Amino acid sequence: MKLGVCYYPEHWPEQRWGEDARLMHTAGLSLVRIGEFAWGLIEPAEGHYEWDWLDRAFETLAAEGLRIILGTPTAAPPAWLTHSYPDVLPVDEAGRRRKAGTRRHYCFNSPDYLALSKNIVSGLAKRFGSHPSLHAWQIDNEFGSHQTTRCYCNNCTRDFRSWLQQKYETLEKLNQSWGTVFWSQLYSSWEQIELPNLTLAQPNPSHWLDYARFASDSVTAFQQMQIDILQTHSPGVPVTHNVIPNLSDINLHQLARKLDRASCSVYPTGLLETSADRFYVPGEEQPVFAYDAGDPVLTGFNLELVQGLKQAPFTIMEQQCGQVNWSRFNTGIRPGTPRLWTLHALSAGADEVLYFRWRAGLSGDEQHHSGLLRHDGSPDVGFQDLLKLQQDLPLLQQICTEPQVVETALILDYEDLWALGKQPHHEYYSTFRLLFCWYRAFQQAGIPCAILPPHADLSPLKLAILPTTWIGKPDLAARLEQYVQHGGTLLMGLRSGFKTTTNTVNPYPLPGVFRKLLNIHVSDWHALPPGQRHEIKSDIPDLAGQAAVWIESLKPDSPQTLVHATWNSGPFSGSAALTEYPSGTGQTFYMGWFPSADQARSLVHYLAGKAGITSLHALPDGVLVSRFGEHSIYLNFSDSVQTISVDGETCALPARDYALLEHKS
Amino acid sequence: MKLGVCYYPEHWPEQRWGEDARLMHTAGLSLVRIGEFAWGLIEPAEGHYEWDWLDRAFETLAAEGLRIILGTPTAAPPAWLTHSYPDVLPVDEAGRRRKAGTRRHYCFNSPDYLALSKNIVSGLAKRFGSHPSLHAWQIDNEFGSHQTTRCYCNNCTRDFRSWLQQKYETLEKLNQSWGTVFWSQLYSSWEQIELPNLTLAQPNPSHWLDYARFASDSVTAFQQMQIDILQTHSPGVPVTHNVIPNLSDINLHQLARKLDRASCSVYPTGLLETSADRFYVPGEEQPVFAYDAGDPVLTGFNLELVQGLKQAPFTIMEQQCGQVNWSRFNTGIRPGTPRLWTLHALSAGADEVLYFRWRAGLSGDEQHHSGLLRHDGSPDVGFQDLLKLQQDLPLLQQICTEPQVVETALILDYEDLWALGKQPHHEYYSTFRLLFCWYRAFQQAGIPCAILPPHADLSPLKLAILPTTWIGKPDLAARLEQYVQHGGTLLMGLRSGFKTTTNTVNPYPLPGVFRKLLNIHVSDWHALPPGQRHEIKSDIPDLAGQAAVWIESLKPDSPQTLVHATWNSGPFSGSAALTEYPSGTGQTFYMGWFPSADQARSLVHYLAGKAGITSLHALPDGVLVSRFGEHSIYLNFSDSVQTISVDGETCALPARDYALLEHKS
Amino acid sequence: MKLGVCYYPEHWPEQRWGEDARLMHTAGLSLVRIGEFAWGLIEPAEGHYEWDWLDRAFETLAAEGLRIILGTPTAAPPAWLTHSYPDVLPVDEAGRRRKAGTRRHYCFNSPDYLALSKNIVSGLAKRFGSHPSLHAWQIDNEFGSHQTTRCYCNNCTRDFRSWLQQKYETLEKLNQSWGTVFWSQLYSSWEQIELPNLTLAQPNPSHWLDYARFASDSVTAFQQMQIDILQTHSPGVPVTHNVIPNLSDINLHQLARKLDRASCSVYPTGLLETSADRFYVPGEEQPVFAYDAGDPVLTGFNLELVQGLKQAPFTIMEQQCGQVNWSRFNTGIRPGTPRLWTLHALSAGADEVLYFRWRAGLSGDEQHHSGLLRHDGSPDVGFQDLLKLQQDLPLLQQICTEPQVVETALILDYEDLWALGKQPHHEYYSTFRLLFCWYRAFQQAGIPCAILPPHADLSPLKLAILPTTWIGKPDLAARLEQYVQHGGTLLMGLRSGFKTTTNTVNPYPLPGVFRKLLNIHVSDWHALPPGQRHEIKSDIPDLAGQAAVWIESLKPDSPQTLVHATWNSGPFSGSAALTEYPSGTGQTFYMGWFPSADQARSLVHYLAGKAGITSLHALPDGVLVSRFGEHSIYLNFSDSVQTISVDGETCALPARDYALLEHKS
Repeated sequence: MKLGVCYYPEHWPEQRWGEDARLMHTAGLSLVRIGEFAWGLIEPAEGHYEWDWLDRAFETLAAEGLRIILGTPTAAPPAWLTHSYPDVLPVDEAGRRRKAGTRRHYCFNSPDYLALSKNIVSGLAKRFGSHPSLHAWQIDNEFGSHQTTRCYCNNCTRDFRSWLQQKYETLEKLNQSWGTVFWSQLYSSWEQIELPNLTLAQPNPSHWLDYARFASDSVTAFQQMQIDILQTHSPGVPVTHNVIPNLSDINLHQLARKLDRASCSVYPTGLLETSADRFYVPGEEQPVFAYDAGDPVLTGFNLELVQGLKQAPFTIMEQQCGQVNWSRFNTGIRPGTPRLWTLHALSAGADEVLYFRWRAGLSGDEQHHSGLLRHDGSPDVGFQDLLKLQQDLPLLQQICTEPQVVETALILDYEDLWALGKQPHHEYYSTFRLLFCWYRAFQQAGIPCAILPPHADLSPLKLAILPTTWIGKPDLAARLEQYVQHGGTLLMGLRSGFKTTTNTVNPYPLPGVFRKLLNIHVSDWHALPPGQRHEIKSDIPDLAGQAAVWIESLKPDSPQTLVHATWNSGPFSGSAALTEYPSGTGQTFYMGWFPSADQARSLVHYLAGKAGITSLHALPDGVLVSRFGEHSIYLNFSDSVQTISVDGETCALPARDYALLEHKS
Repeated sequence: MKLGVCYYPEHWPEQRWGEDARLMHTAGLSLVRIGEFAWGLIEPAEGHYEWDWLDRAFETLAAEGLRIILGTPTAAPPAWLTHSYPDVLPVDEAGRRRKAGTRRHYCFNSPDYLALSKNIVSGLAKRFGSHPSLHAWQIDNEFGSHQTTRCYCNNCTRDFRSWLQQKYETLEKLNQSWGTVFWSQLYSSWEQIELPNLTLAQPNPSHWLDYARFASDSVTAFQQMQIDILQTHSPGVPVTHNVIPNLSDINLHQLARKLDRASCSVYPTGLLETSADRFYVPGEEQPVFAYDAGDPVLTGFNLELVQGLKQAPFTIMEQQCGQVNWSRFNTGIRPGTPRLWTLHALSAGADEVLYFRWRAGLSGDEQHHSGLLRHDGSPDVGFQDLLKLQQDLPLLQQICTEPQVVETALILDYEDLWALGKQPHHEYYSTFRLLFCWYRAFQQAGIPCAILPPHADLSPLKLAILPTTWIGKPDLAARLEQYVQHGGTLLMGLRSGFKTTTNTVNPYPLPGVFRKLLNIHVSDWHALPPGQRHEIKSDIPDLAGQAAVWIESLKPDSPQTLVHATWNSGPFSGSAALTEYPSGTGQTFYMGWFPSADQARSLVHYLAGKAGITSLHALPDGVLVSRFGEHSIYLNFSDSVQTISVDGETCALPARDYALLEHKS
Repeated sequence: MKLGVCYYPEHWPEQRWGEDARLMHTAGLSLVRIGEFAWGLIEPAEGHYEWDWLDRAFETLAAEGLRIILGTPTAAPPAWLTHSYPDVLPVDEAGRRRKAGTRRHYCFNSPDYLALSKNIVSGLAKRFGSHPSLHAWQIDNEFGSHQTTRCYCNNCTRDFRSWLQQKYETLEKLNQSWGTVFWSQLYSSWEQIELPNLTLAQPNPSHWLDYARFASDSVTAFQQMQIDILQTHSPGVPVTHNVIPNLSDINLHQLARKLDRASCSVYPTGLLETSADRFYVPGEEQPVFAYDAGDPVLTGFNLELVQGLKQAPFTIMEQQCGQVNWSRFNTGIRPGTPRLWTLHALSAGADEVLYFRWRAGLSGDEQHHSGLLRHDGSPDVGFQDLLKLQQDLPLLQQICTEPQVVETALILDYEDLWALGKQPHHEYYSTFRLLFCWYRAFQQAGIPCAILPPHADLSPLKLAILPTTWIGKPDLAARLEQYVQHGGTLLMGLRSGFKTTTNTVNPYPLPGVFRKLLNIHVSDWHALPPGQRHEIKSDIPDLAGQAAVWIESLKPDSPQTLVHATWNSGPFSGSAALTEYPSGTGQTFYMGWFPSADQARSLVHYLAGKAGITSLHALPDGVLVSRFGEHSIYLNFSDSVQTISVDGETCALPARDYALLEHKS
């Protein structure tokens, strides 16, 4: 694993650069990312370029053996640009033209912005594309942050119409695919189609989903424009983009497809403070961990999501190493925590970790964000942890090259996320909450679990879970059939197959295109208001209990279908709630309710046993484990010593620390 | 009682229509509403009409003996219309022009929209106005939903000025009536008057109330334009409009005046999930009932409100028959509940009930809304309940023709609702909360209680309650005087008479124009912050206790005034809190505090006794009763058996079911 | 002390004026404020003036010996004005042009508005400037209310650029001072600089702080334009403006500088209901007091803030005397409370108190606001209290002329308030919360405490506390050094010196420019999430305990630095938390955490002892004390009798009443 840091030479006097580079080297860093917000310094006026300072920065860093990840600076249009081309500025959902002065203030579909971006990216690629110290390219920065994926300007309106015309060819087909017969929405010219904001009621879901796809595609196309330039002028140098893992309005699977590697930002405490309520169900009991560590399951979920983008080692382009500045309480970070995060990254599949940022900045919005160095240049907690890490890393890095076996996966489809996010039907229902519930259960059982795109190769898996596959895509159904035929175990969850690919309702009994695969049908479904629960009985250990949020009544389609859980109260009393159908050499399960954390855990144990997956054992709150070959790395995110019992032996895990165990063969 | 259903033939293949019609007939339905969102199918381009499909739909339904309620389709302007006439689109309170793509995206004062609406309504009226199967007309659909009553566009500004000019004739009179001397708001030309949105402080209440009246009048005028056309081209066919009963920004009494009958939408679970907090005081204990039944008192209040519009049998144009899609949790509905709702409708005075909708729709915003049939065409819970209902209805319908005696009423004035809603003074104060508190007390006492407009004939009543008649209208005072002189019992509540008809403050002691009637004056009033209460003692059983929210100090104007309650703590200690004044052969009461549910119940028992009204008895939570001649229908909305004791006999009411009792003469 | 009232003769028939004036006289009032919303009556059309009615009002009031405070009417532009000059209307942060119809609907930088305001103010000054009954001028009314300090219109954009050009002279200097290198925000022309609203992320703090200064300066300049006119045409007559004391977006110290005296509005219950959460930390225990009295500490804080503006007796231009109309619950006021408020004003340094308002108004937004008279002209609670006050005032007024010794002060810098308000880093952190915490501790200890501007003369003080002096101004550091050298005791609090004057981060160890003064440096700081606390031990009585919200690790810079508190748990365990440094004949303290109310109280006792300040004693909740010479006035805001023990004797304080004690010499 290579360590690195994000650096802004332009923020500091040039005479300081050399010392910074030397200190980076001392701290064991070998990578440095620069340039991603420097457009205004490189091109201070349109068409006028100043390369010299960047040349010197490159050389200063290279002189200390640092390898450079160069950012294309399109995330921050310079002041002259938006002043000269005001229609670059995006329009928000409320219809307001937003202003310059921070970052991301551009529309992905602005022809002016595309042209100006091509120029600066080409310039950079030509200037530095063959530099021997160039390690990789980062395109732009955190697409979609500050809610900028979806713009509602006239350029977008025009391009959305073209996108639709290309997809549907005729208005007849569009009208039919969207069901515009509802509420008299039939279109008789393409110009009648508007972007779906500022409507009085909720827009047509089909219209809205296509807009969500278009907006995500616009980001991907903007990125592709840059990829093409970089590949032309800087052949062989890897290209990446640092995603926000839990961002939900860009299809990150599509975005990552043409990238050479995945990378991301990881801010555990900020994530916890701002996003925990998107992953836990309101009122659900949450795990306990050290107050400055972030929620390790939530952090792990984000790391796994990024690992799944390319299913290959990835880069953490921005790793929190002290407090953040953009959260609610911006918790201070204690010694040991940045080290723990780095080990978490390592065991989760990252092979490059760059801390954000080198030195706390003096101006602009991120003044309170920590760096490895403080504002005054003294070492902060992250820098101190780096020194300690140097004792741990050699052995751990070696162990992490041992084979890792991942036999289970959760499948995430962004189109489900979008569609369900707009029509959850029950306020507590969300794709992320369901995925996270299962992910948490796997973590607690000590079973590694990938989060994969629907197009991923499923053949290496023993167990695949699709918690809520709302849009019933026939090709997915066929691929799941193949997977099961060849021995896979599949669990599908509630509401599967409800929608067609254009986001209309499937007119056949549920689970629609998945029915043959699961050999049941859903005879009824109910959302339950908070506090209302109905009872399940089950032959699976510890599964019986109460179901909340959403329940379904299942009917076996044949005698081969086994019933593992049955409703014991409520409107579906006597009907099946969880079924199994043996198919080929595998089997499919359908689960007809929204599981609690405990229920997911019981079922994970049962399914793992069934699929021949070894659970390491139940882990206490705050502890994660990763296995590489005959070694397991245990990470303790809690503030107390935890006792782990492995292979009959007991081991004490110090607080906010790790332990390395060798398994007896 | 006739049953029916809302049907969208345009949503389904024509070959399915016949089967649908046959199934409707089988299910005992005789009415079907169609057409109210079909403008784009009837007039696919401006001036180009396609009648054939609608002709065929008419004939197919008529062939099964179904009678048709035809909706005018103005609730959903087609895509071509708003594209050609963009100023049809309304402007919201925040000043934003809203977009097409759903429904209700039109301004009631757009001249273009009026002209285009006239054309389509005339076309429909001419085509189908004399069809033998035409049962009634529904104009538009749910005026005011999605907060569309009040538009802030330039057309509205212009028409508001004309409306004012017509009302006040001179600016001098307007300035005086509005008290524009306050904050230098004096107008010296009509063009200076703006719509009262986007002001920095709260607008002048007089200005605002006139705007609220104007906006409501604009809806009524738009409806009248359609009534005139329909009466011309379809003489003798009843005309209605389906109101949202608890909508507060249209004067439904005015809206209903020129309609032939009242109709409405009734969605008990959606109402509960989205609106309960508008009817209960924050922190107030709410009754218990089955989780999927909705709050029966809240549903009953809405039904009573609609009954009061014409004081005649009415149509439930949209009756919930399964889950809704527009609420927070959209609770699933169990067998038995749709039947219970239908019986509630019947006993509340509806003689036509149409379920919404025939089959769950595949596209558009309402995809998750249930129908009698599921998306796949199989019978859903409502259809199954229909079959069961066929055993109950014949006897019940006969009983419901027996005379029903309603001797008590609550009076609702929309102008009070508007004025108090803008200036509640105390966050918990609202007209609806007070009306509902009293309505609930009557329900719990088993006493039928109407909700009537201020212009209603009061002579049939033994007891009338005006919980908070803020605007003191002299003609109302005179009519109440007449009512009491002839033996009526009247209770008026706090804050009565505070305002003049132009929403300035009455400069005389309160209750102003009602003072002579009540023979007291209010010497002081106080709002109380949450948690603060003062004590009352009273000679009325169970009335003594604590008063919250709002208290008043009353002084008798003569020795004839009797004092029934006195302040026992607080600033008004020793003053009267509840008084009675005998007048003619009746009596008036004034109550000087915001009652709790228990206090309202105690007082209802006392007043009923005084006015010679028989209380059936105190009912448990979740049980309602209606009496017809010598029969009483008891409805149990709870999930447990309830025991009712009537005329000395005890009867067990099954859960979510009804019982019919015959009284001993 | 003079008493008076706010009066709107234009609201009432002229024949009533004489009686009103007589009643004012009877009630012991000698001052009357008029005119501040009467523009539309004085100048009903542009350039057309009607002075007669105002002349007559003047004479009618003067005839009863009343002296007049005349308001310039610029707070309420007449309807004709904004209709003729629509760009006078302000644009809010969301980019919306706001509408006329209430008040304050003008931009301070509108050239049209400046010209029109000059005309009306000059007209008034010429007409009434030498009137023998003219007591004072009030300019405009409550600048900044309804969030009108900051406008985002094109006039403001233009003037902001000029303001910046004047301040920075060159773009190079601006770019450097703002650190626009961050996120490519470098400006190459003045026209590129926009107002900092509608940005996607938080704007550059330097940009934002300059805008906040500009907006505040715009108000001051608008006021200065009026001062100049009034001083020219009405020489010798005092000029004031009635501020909202706890308004945070105008620099009230600057605003007050050129005024002859400070004045303000005081509404204790409205303040409590709408603003308590800005002064108490969420979850903090709040004191108990009578429900209609307002929070006496909060009211006192506001009064002290106004006293500090000129450090001289001030006017309460609007004193609540009954319920307000603009709050959440608008609590009713009981007899005795208005009297108590008046005594509070007296003992806090006000020598003129005018009640708002004479008679409750009949029209406009303030209909529910009480007056001394009710709507019907009868005396309300305030009028009755006035009569009672006449028994108390003669003695009290005499006592209040005895010397008052204020030896402690809190220092408030509006620029800190603005800067920290935009970047609190922790949601609970705010300048007002910290100032209030200390103020409350002083009140509870019976020690008078001023709230002073940073430029105030510190030499009379024995103890000065600067709870969080974020922007490290070198001149302030020098003045504090002088203060301490000459014997002062100084406590500085957390986060001091973090920022430079242009709101970039100070690049040196904290507390930056104050380091030499305090002789420590801050080696680390942490924000703590809610519920997380770390332990302190201390040699100061009752100070040991838990610290929340924010903690800092302190390192003495020399052996002379004494450590009074040390971290006993958490990341800074063993480091100092509170230090003392003897300097000259004084000493400096630095406190490295966010104090709780109890901790502040313990420290106030300790520091008072150290500085030789006599604490009267610890007071119970709801009791305040002020000492004048050998007398102390105790005010009891609670609803029960409180026992006070002074000089070994015990005294019973009646509920909502006062006691006057003479100290034994």
